[in-house]
Amino acid sequence: MANTKIIPSAQNAYEYPLLIKNLLVSGPRYNPDQEIVYANRSKYTYTDLVDRIHRLANALTDAGVGPGDVVAVMDWDTPRYLECFFAIPMIGAVLHTVNVRLSPEQIVYTMNHAEDHTVLVHDDFVPLLEQVSDQLTTVKGYVQLTDESEARSTSLNTIGEYEALLAKADNHFDFPDFDENSVATTFYTTGTTGNPKGVFFSHRQLVLHTMAQLGSLAASDEMPFMRSNTVYMPVTPMFHVHAWGVPYAATMLGIKQVYPGRYEPELLVDLIKEHKVTFSHCVPTIMQMMLATESIKTADLSNWHVLIGGSAMTEGLCRTGAKLGIRMYTGYGMSETCPLLASTRLKPEDLELPLEEQAPRRIRTGVAVPMVHIEIVDPEGNPLPHDGETKGELVCRAPWLTQGYFKEPEKGEALWEGGWLHTGDVASIDPDSTIQIRDRIKDVIKTGGEWLSSLDLENMISQHPAVNATAVVGVPDEKWGERPHALVQLIPGQEASLEDLQNHLKQFVDSGEINKWAIPEQIDFVDDIPKTSVGKINKKLIRDQLES
Amino acid sequence: MANTKIIPSAQNAYEYPLLIKNLLVSGPRYNPDQEIVYANRSKYTYTDLVDRIHRLANALTDAGVGPGDVVAVMDWDTPRYLECFFAIPMIGAVLHTVNVRLSPEQIVYTMNHAEDHTVLVHDDFVPLLEQVSDQLTTVKGYVQLTDESEARSTSLNTIGEYEALLAKADNHFDFPDFDENSVATTFYTTGTTGNPKGVFFSHRQLVLHTMAQLGSLAASDEMPFMRSNTVYMPVTPMFHVHAWGVPYAATMLGIKQVYPGRYEPELLVDLIKEHKVTFSHCVPTIMQMMLATESIKTADLSNWHVLIGGSAMTEGLCRTGAKLGIRMYTGYGMSETCPLLASTRLKPEDLELPLEEQAPRRIRTGVAVPMVHIEIVDPEGNPLPHDGETKGELVCRAPWLTQGYFKEPEKGEALWEGGWLHTGDVASIDPDSTIQIRDRIKDVIKTGGEWLSSLDLENMISQHPAVNATAVVGVPDEKWGERPHALVQLIPGQEASLEDLQNHLKQFVDSGEINKWAIPEQIDFVDDIPKTSVGKINKKLIRDQLES
Repeated sequence: MANTKIIPSAQNAYEYPLLIKNLLVSGPRYNPDQEIVYANRSKYTYTDLVDRIHRLANALTDAGVGPGDVVAVMDWDTPRYLECFFAIPMIGAVLHTVNVRLSPEQIVYTMNHAEDHTVLVHDDFVPLLEQVSDQLTTVKGYVQLTDESEARSTSLNTIGEYEALLAKADNHFDFPDFDENSVATTFYTTGTTGNPKGVFFSHRQLVLHTMAQLGSLAASDEMPFMRSNTVYMPVTPMFHVHAWGVPYAATMLGIKQVYPGRYEPELLVDLIKEHKVTFSHCVPTIMQMMLATESIKTADLSNWHVLIGGSAMTEGLCRTGAKLGIRMYTGYGMSETCPLLASTRLKPEDLELPLEEQAPRRIRTGVAVPMVHIEIVDPEGNPLPHDGETKGELVCRAPWLTQGYFKEPEKGEALWEGGWLHTGDVASIDPDSTIQIRDRIKDVIKTGGEWLSSLDLENMISQHPAVNATAVVGVPDEKWGERPHALVQLIPGQEASLEDLQNHLKQFVDSGEINKWAIPEQIDFVDDIPKTSVGKINKKLIRDQLES
Repeated sequence: MANTKIIPSAQNAYEYPLLIKNLLVSGPRYNPDQEIVYANRSKYTYTDLVDRIHRLANALTDAGVGPGDVVAVMDWDTPRYLECFFAIPMIGAVLHTVNVRLSPEQIVYTMNHAEDHTVLVHDDFVPLLEQVSDQLTTVKGYVQLTDESEARSTSLNTIGEYEALLAKADNHFDFPDFDENSVATTFYTTGTTGNPKGVFFSHRQLVLHTMAQLGSLAASDEMPFMRSNTVYMPVTPMFHVHAWGVPYAATMLGIKQVYPGRYEPELLVDLIKEHKVTFSHCVPTIMQMMLATESIKTADLSNWHVLIGGSAMTEGLCRTGAKLGIRMYTGYGMSETCPLLASTRLKPEDLELPLEEQAPRRIRTGVAVPMVHIEIVDPEGNPLPHDGETKGELVCRAPWLTQGYFKEPEKGEALWEGGWLHTGDVASIDPDSTIQIRDRIKDVIKTGGEWLSSLDLENMISQHPAVNATAVVGVPDEKWGERPHALVQLIPGQEASLEDLQNHLKQFVDSGEINKWAIPEQIDFVDDIPKTSVGKINKKLIRDQLES
């Protein structure tokens, strides 16, 4: 083990800042020889991970990166990225996880706004940066990342290639203690209006999020996150809220990790099979892609547990997965919340049901995790009853919420109105504390003087056997204010008409779940549902297209 | 749920202090109807627990207790005590958990030294306080705790009886936010020399200890702490390092808790049977007492997991428990460390062995828990290699270590020498990071120029089938410096001679674990091994008796 030197006496030796370096001590201790795998390319051990983090810290310092400097990463999901999750904040610098799916203009905007000092960039994104590098006003240099024997030749001002820099760097770095409130990471939300907004998290916040995440996952009868046979593979991009923070928790516990690189559905399924992956997390879109592969039909997925977040999981998706033995759970949070706020909590009696019949329980938003305070409020900020019926905006307090938006304090004021973080989600809370997100405030359809949840309607449409995916938005209507308008993507080879779907929805009218005016007159059958860069349904774009 | 009011806007709303009140939000949310049981007397739900904590906060405030005041508790292990664990720190006061097994003089010393303001006292300790109340210089009043229909009549200046005060108190208290570094609890170490020393822990420290404890317990394949069928019963007094902090973790997760009241071995075993207890923790002495009961022979204990700490667990004890199906683990820590530093980590291959044969793995000190930095050092503070052979003093850094001793900063200087907390334990660390405590520095026997671990020798003696308990100390010897001297308590009805035990020890000479000079010439057969007030072997007293 590196770094066994005794730390010099401090004035208050008992003071112990919550720094990301302290998340790294236990994993290599629990399992020094445990593997960290990079797709079908390479693998190494936790002992190697520590060695490489020390080398990366020295390489970056040698390249002139100092405390407070922002280091951007543009890479696929790789163990290199995991090393950056640790080494960059551990030297006191700030990790900027660049969303590589943004437009070149937005990427330039975020990199200038974050004041990136050094950029680690994968070959695949080098052409993009070559186009725009003259617009990047703060970048001093580039480190190249490659999966080939040689990095792509480039006109960028490169410091060197990652592996070569690590090879020649010293394998010991004295990671300093500093204020736990120092910013560790930043990234940009992918709002559908205006420029991306920068959120940022401190060392303290990431450490506390990691520890509470353990508590939440641990408080589950079923989710076997922390066992010696646990195999973890993230399927949420590492630029997307630090892959929901799970790589930190996995590393803290020393469990086997598999990084898939690019998200090619067949490759993902092959990795799950080969490494007997037990735990993943992803957005519904990616799950749909994996479920549509040929190879998934021959996989034993009865021990694969998947936390679904980013968008609401539909009952249809959960049931389709259950047919293959996949156990899905809902995770709830957002970029501004680091992200975890709540997750599915199944009761013993839920688990006694056949897996498919558990779907209605699994798609519920779930129960807030330890340390999180959560309420629903009316527009004046008054708390509303937890009766399972009353809907209000979900607000929260937790130790890991963004303070606001980087360099745009005025936007953070609305976010933090009244001392609670406002999620922009409409929810109800049951008497037993189970949260159910009903919709985004701005996606709720106001029709005939009442609120109709677009999510509820999507969920009902998704249960028609011919439907692969759907999106519902409100469109202006002179008589009713708004009317629901659905886009439907059918499963290839399947057929359904407007009338079929309307008839399908009548069962929910009969059961009292919706009124008959909730059934849309307008359903467009489409090849694709518009998505944002992180795979969420882009309702803003859908509304714009329908209006134009 | 109480306390659903929106907290008024703060200047920095995103700031979230780590306060004990925040450990209370999730348990009642996960399991509002989960039970908290008081022995064979009464039970209530988590919803009731929250209600009672609010009432207790109001009752104490009405009695004049304010932020910073010290509130002492003298009670058996009861749900009342759990309520005090929360309510007292949550109003900003300091909980003093009085060690009721100290002598009256020492109790007076600790209560005056801690400057107790109000004392919650069980009937059984009222006569003791009546004797000494005129020596208590800071106490303003007493709250009586009783298990009878009426509290004992007393000359103490009582404010009232606990249940009566709760009944008339308001069931809503607005628990304030304040600095997380505020002291939450204090108690006194039971050193064998000089006056007891006060250690103290902040809200932040207790919150972080709780969260890391979850991580440690979660990182175990076997210990089913956090399942809906988990039933927790502490068998370490609540005055003893907050029952090792586990009541906080259990409450945070909303699991069933059983408080046994007094430690009557037959009662403890009956409670384990009746409530199907799955998790407990205790010192070896208490385990020995429980194993010696008649009723344990007819209990199904195959799902009972017990963390053993306070003193080293011997292989003999672990094997005896294993014969009954009990799964024991080692927990390592001390009063100054809140206490958890390390615990047994079994590997999958360990668990494949028959339970009895797992004993040598289960008695190892284990692996340090997440966030804890640990080293072994020589007398000059230089780190020593982790080769499983080299012995040095165990030093640590963690987010939950006492700053020093209350009002005795000079004693804390040695504790924190060189910026690490010095445990006073001699240990080795294996290349795989497994810690093995070899002895207390002051208990190591220096004989013939070499160090002999008294713990190792005790462990070997304990494996003789006639031995119930043993203690080994070094006694001065002109020729060798020191020689080992053993006290042995035989199992009733069993016999063994000095020569039998010496012959038994020769196997460890043959296997190379000890040299032949480690075999003691002097073994006293005794009825009882002297113990401290918390059940540890009192080696200071044994040495004094042997020298006199």
